[in-house]
Amino acid sequence: MPESINSVYTDETEHQRPTRFQNLPSTSSVNYEDTDDSVIASNEETTLLSSARRRVEVNNEKVDIGSLNILSAKYESLDYDTCENHLLLDEDRKKGYRFIVKKNIARWFIFLLIGMFTALLACIIDILIEELSEIKYAKLSKSVDQYVTQGKLYIPYFLWALYNVIPVLIGSILVAYVEPIAAGSGIPQVKCYLNGVKVPRVVRIRTLFVKSVGVICSVVGGLAGGKEGPMIHSGAVIAAGISQGKSTSLKKDFKIFRYFRDDHEKRDFVSGGAAAGVAAAFGAPVGGVLFSLEEGTSFWNQSLTWKTFFASVISTFTLNVVLSAYHGAPGNLSYPGLFTLGQYQSFNYSLLELPLFIIMGSIGGLLGALWNHINYKITVFRMRYIRPRWLKVIEACLVAIVTATLGFLLMFLINDCRPLGQDPTKYPTQLYCTDGEYNVLASIWFQTPEASVRSLFHDPPNTHNALSLGAFVIVYFFLASWTFGLASSNGLFIPTLLTGAAWGRLVSIGLYNIFPDLNIIHPGKYALIGAAAQLGGVVRMTISLTVILMECTGNITFALPLIITLIAAKWTGDFFNEGIYDTLIQLSGVPLLPWEPPPLVRNIYASEVMSHPVVTLKCVENVGHILELLKLTTYNGFPVVDPPLTDQKEVTTYGRIRGLILRSQLLVILNKKLFNEISDEWEHTTAEVFRDQYPRYLEISEISLTEEEKTYFIDLRPFMNPSPYTVLHSTSLSRTFRLFRGLGLRHLPIVNDTNEVIGMITRKDLARYRVWKHQGRLGVEELLISKEI
Amino acid sequence: MPESINSVYTDETEHQRPTRFQNLPSTSSVNYEDTDDSVIASNEETTLLSSARRRVEVNNEKVDIGSLNILSAKYESLDYDTCENHLLLDEDRKKGYRFIVKKNIARWFIFLLIGMFTALLACIIDILIEELSEIKYAKLSKSVDQYVTQGKLYIPYFLWALYNVIPVLIGSILVAYVEPIAAGSGIPQVKCYLNGVKVPRVVRIRTLFVKSVGVICSVVGGLAGGKEGPMIHSGAVIAAGISQGKSTSLKKDFKIFRYFRDDHEKRDFVSGGAAAGVAAAFGAPVGGVLFSLEEGTSFWNQSLTWKTFFASVISTFTLNVVLSAYHGAPGNLSYPGLFTLGQYQSFNYSLLELPLFIIMGSIGGLLGALWNHINYKITVFRMRYIRPRWLKVIEACLVAIVTATLGFLLMFLINDCRPLGQDPTKYPTQLYCTDGEYNVLASIWFQTPEASVRSLFHDPPNTHNALSLGAFVIVYFFLASWTFGLASSNGLFIPTLLTGAAWGRLVSIGLYNIFPDLNIIHPGKYALIGAAAQLGGVVRMTISLTVILMECTGNITFALPLIITLIAAKWTGDFFNEGIYDTLIQLSGVPLLPWEPPPLVRNIYASEVMSHPVVTLKCVENVGHILELLKLTTYNGFPVVDPPLTDQKEVTTYGRIRGLILRSQLLVILNKKLFNEISDEWEHTTAEVFRDQYPRYLEISEISLTEEEKTYFIDLRPFMNPSPYTVLHSTSLSRTFRLFRGLGLRHLPIVNDTNEVIGMITRKDLARYRVWKHQGRLGVEELLISKEI
Repeated sequence: MPESINSVYTDETEHQRPTRFQNLPSTSSVNYEDTDDSVIASNEETTLLSSARRRVEVNNEKVDIGSLNILSAKYESLDYDTCENHLLLDEDRKKGYRFIVKKNIARWFIFLLIGMFTALLACIIDILIEELSEIKYAKLSKSVDQYVTQGKLYIPYFLWALYNVIPVLIGSILVAYVEPIAAGSGIPQVKCYLNGVKVPRVVRIRTLFVKSVGVICSVVGGLAGGKEGPMIHSGAVIAAGISQGKSTSLKKDFKIFRYFRDDHEKRDFVSGGAAAGVAAAFGAPVGGVLFSLEEGTSFWNQSLTWKTFFASVISTFTLNVVLSAYHGAPGNLSYPGLFTLGQYQSFNYSLLELPLFIIMGSIGGLLGALWNHINYKITVFRMRYIRPRWLKVIEACLVAIVTATLGFLLMFLINDCRPLGQDPTKYPTQLYCTDGEYNVLASIWFQTPEASVRSLFHDPPNTHNALSLGAFVIVYFFLASWTFGLASSNGLFIPTLLTGAAWGRLVSIGLYNIFPDLNIIHPGKYALIGAAAQLGGVVRMTISLTVILMECTGNITFALPLIITLIAAKWTGDFFNEGIYDTLIQLSGVPLLPWEPPPLVRNIYASEVMSHPVVTLKCVENVGHILELLKLTTYNGFPVVDPPLTDQKEVTTYGRIRGLILRSQLLVILNKKLFNEISDEWEHTTAEVFRDQYPRYLEISEISLTEEEKTYFIDLRPFMNPSPYTVLHSTSLSRTFRLFRGLGLRHLPIVNDTNEVIGMITRKDLARYRVWKHQGRLGVEELLISKEI
Repeated sequence: MPESINSVYTDETEHQRPTRFQNLPSTSSVNYEDTDDSVIASNEETTLLSSARRRVEVNNEKVDIGSLNILSAKYESLDYDTCENHLLLDEDRKKGYRFIVKKNIARWFIFLLIGMFTALLACIIDILIEELSEIKYAKLSKSVDQYVTQGKLYIPYFLWALYNVIPVLIGSILVAYVEPIAAGSGIPQVKCYLNGVKVPRVVRIRTLFVKSVGVICSVVGGLAGGKEGPMIHSGAVIAAGISQGKSTSLKKDFKIFRYFRDDHEKRDFVSGGAAAGVAAAFGAPVGGVLFSLEEGTSFWNQSLTWKTFFASVISTFTLNVVLSAYHGAPGNLSYPGLFTLGQYQSFNYSLLELPLFIIMGSIGGLLGALWNHINYKITVFRMRYIRPRWLKVIEACLVAIVTATLGFLLMFLINDCRPLGQDPTKYPTQLYCTDGEYNVLASIWFQTPEASVRSLFHDPPNTHNALSLGAFVIVYFFLASWTFGLASSNGLFIPTLLTGAAWGRLVSIGLYNIFPDLNIIHPGKYALIGAAAQLGGVVRMTISLTVILMECTGNITFALPLIITLIAAKWTGDFFNEGIYDTLIQLSGVPLLPWEPPPLVRNIYASEVMSHPVVTLKCVENVGHILELLKLTTYNGFPVVDPPLTDQKEVTTYGRIRGLILRSQLLVILNKKLFNEISDEWEHTTAEVFRDQYPRYLEISEISLTEEEKTYFIDLRPFMNPSPYTVLHSTSLSRTFRLFRGLGLRHLPIVNDTNEVIGMITRKDLARYRVWKHQGRLGVEELLISKEI
């Protein structure tokens, strides 16, 4: 242990220090030690982060917030690597195969429950949104037609604004004051969680509550947002909750599924929950599995795929059973109304249209990249200036009012009238149209965005004219971009599809004017292609989107055009910037690890990347020392070492590695007083003891020990991970990355030639090296790490 | 280096031994050393396999062949782990980012080519089979109706037998004499390759030739086999061939794509090729990706998924363009005839039918398990007794004759006549029917199995009676089971679907008799469910099968019933035995690693699993010594170590690990004479030199060195992998497994506490531990390793 670190403890724990500390070497000889940093560490209590060595002071806060080049130090990793300590081996021996089988059956059962509950929640959200929106738009439509003759159109306008603002106000107050993590779609957060980053509060029950109520409020409030993203996030929370058999927030422990209480198991369930969420949101079971695969889960294996698939299927099944009953066709699971975006009859397409689809895909990629850029700028502005909670609420309400205003202006200014009976709209609004006609734009606005997508997909040709579609595209494009990222729970799938469907129809009108004789130009087909292009341009997912769009329109003949469009959209968009989710993740400084190490980092070595000095523990360690260590540092893992032999001529500063112990384990040990001197607790100590406290461990400040207890010792060997993966200091960054990513590690001790610990690599040390891609050119850049964002 | 191994070299290389060998310790002190094995090694030249320590003599050869508990020693692993030696770093430095971008573009281009060529080959096979079968069955049908009136039915019978035997004879001679690996569907072999096992000759051009011609022969020959499996294998071979830019067999090097010549890159391309093969066989691009994912690729990542998807899409596209032209609708890519199994119009199903689907799924699982068991028994019989090549050819011809005989008997004995015009069969055969009617069974037999599946899926109700269907199911079930595994190239997808479709229709007839008023009992729907159940019961794939069946019938409303059926089939089947592919893989003793380590192996340590003693090399090693080592051993990887210091008091037998060098690298070094004493070669030495000789390196016996050269030295450091992943001897089997599997390793050196090599773990050491599951009970068993199967 280096002198400088020791001196820190000496200053503050003088009286408790056991005498054996006297034997430690007083000078250090390892190259990697950096005394300056340790001094900093002794000044600020919380700076001993694993990233402290490369910590960069962010001089001007306002400049740096909203930068894409800073990693936040506040995100920790999940422990995906199982700690195979003696307790676990004991459990294995005692419980045997029967327990394995039992656990496996329980696992399937939990996936069943996840699918069911996710779908039931989705049904509640679906039905409430549908019912409330129907009431709202029926009143508005009636009000417009009632006051238009009296010239008092300001009354329905105010009514509309009011109907928008009230739910949005409720939703945004919930989000801003109760649980800010519930804002937005939740997909970026779920993606981070599945990637192994611990996003604080992302799978709590409070988040679920705010998310569910919030999404109803924002969709009923008429915001340009959808319910799909929040449903996926809800599925993830439900999975996390059910699998743990307890809720720490509600202080309720059902004492079931206790053996699944660790990060590894929980994350597997969450990947199933996310898939079930997609399945419930779109009625797309295969799409759900592919979403989980494409967007998240790093450590995929066949048995997890299987269970995820099972959860998705159960979710779709439950959803269809409930919704078919709601729509008045109970038991008829092939009821066409169950297709979220309406069932397409198959239509023809010709080889000659494929270039057109590629062009539309590229347009979608361009528009998507633009949309992402606008949203990125808005988000940065929000991060810098819209910081107080009340301001966030006001912004949400402002957007609600602007939405109503723009909608009203559009239908007021563009008098696109069509004869009644041609359009399946529920509340035809006459406005200035002659009798027997209705205002087209009112019918788009006076329904949920999802219903509007269905209209654009399936309305017969000539339902809209070019002017109204064009105006709608422009307004909705910017509105959606402003709305996404507000302090309200809503996703971007549906508004993006809506924008794309509208310009897709516009394309079909243009084509029809050029080639009036071609009968294959069906506007619905082009609406679908446009929607796919726009969505692909924004989110840049391809395989899962293809399948989701196929599954929620019930048409498979269209697979090839969809895929081609999506690929074109992705390639075009990737030329300019990243997908919106990745941009948001970068903005919040989450150390998300990419799938592969950046190229050309084979000449960067682990010794350059690692954090050091390392705080190590001995196999048998003094209680007071551990207590002080936990108070002084924020490290989450400590290598356990053999103390270096002091009678040797050459003194090595750190000892030979024996194992790795986590902060959470130390907290439990201290809390349960599993000290060598108090032997009677020992017999009851099983792996259960540690799982019971998962996931919210005590804070170190909550643990109080007597002065006598502080002189006791702890034998760490039964608790520590006795064979952590390690790499040599001369290992390249790419190999280190692959090991870390491939096994889902949280801590990777770096050893020298004789297996002595000289450093530690954590997620942030690796996430710092990022490929920098701009207009086809490549490079590797090193990100800064800040504790202030 | 242990004494015993040294003595081996001493015996044979007395004169060339450099003097520094004198310094080696003459006694060994490491516990893991096992002198007996080394003695064996010195006796038999080829026994020094990495698995030698646990090698078990198979006493009675005949008893053991066909056992599921033996691993064959003949399978080596692929090197998926990139060797980051100095040459590669040099290359990185010199070529920079431009090269990365260039390589990436080339990669996409290769995936494009793979998709195109796979589809084109599939088209050729498709069209040839269709044309030849048409000629054959037209003649047969005509001949039957011509001779039935004359009472000379033996003439069409002999004709049929002849038409069957001739193509089958050609195909089976090709398979038995030219390339035996081309037998069967090829899916198990591709699965092994994707899993990282080097299956000899599996991706050679000769295999492709035999496979393509063989599959045409066997389908035209009327065997109960399909062309889908072989097409997938063909896709894999095409991918391997194109990506390497050369064919060693044809002695043609196009000097392109030279930077992709290593196992890692090649395997990525092969996974794309397999997906393209599925896409071409079924017209199922998404199914192709999922197949690659579910069945094979262990080290999945998003960028590979993307490229695989691209190859699948290109493949489907090319296929559709060519086939739409062939079917007379050029450019119309939504032409319904492009659906491999015919397009389903959507039909309704009710909640009440789901239990029925589950029951049918279970029946499929049962029948599938039975089918697998029968095929397993037949395969074992073949392995034991049908060993000479001529016998294999005779068996194939026998099956061809039996097929014709059974078909003839069925249509002769069961006089199921239907009025003409109701069935879309091309060549209605009248046989004993009255004028204006045709024989139903003749119409099933007188077409390719694929066309029969289409008939059963889409023929109107009442096309078949229960007796003809029942008889057909029984005959075809056993026939297919006998056919699969013959010395001919054919797959099992189509015959299995056909069996299932037939009994599915039978179920619908039964239901119709019980509930004559229910109008939802469409026989085509039940044929599809039956086909899915049977196929699911045999191969036990679920997600990819769901999507493949959806994509090749063009119907998505049916996703949920299909999934439920497939899950029921898999669960039922898994209760009895494993999927047919896994059974075949086990029978051939391939050390396939499962997705997860077996349960409860956390108390088995690396030191128990590893092979030792280990043959190590020094950083600067004598040429003669290396030459002898390569001649004496069959190891494929050698740890490079610092020789232990002899002036220390305590002598450690093996040195501290410095790196790992492969046999193939040593062969190139020896071949190119990259010796310290011959310096002029050095400047031209780049990573290219090593890639150029990939994948067929010289044999050690082909390398000849002068006596003087044998006294030279080689500095191994620029060539070796300087930071191989290693684990401590105390690491558990499960952790070792995860590291090995997660990173796709081939050699894993085991080190002691001070980083000195004490053993080596290879794939076989890990594959030996297998979960043993029987009727719901679990256990871990240790397999034997034999060099004789």
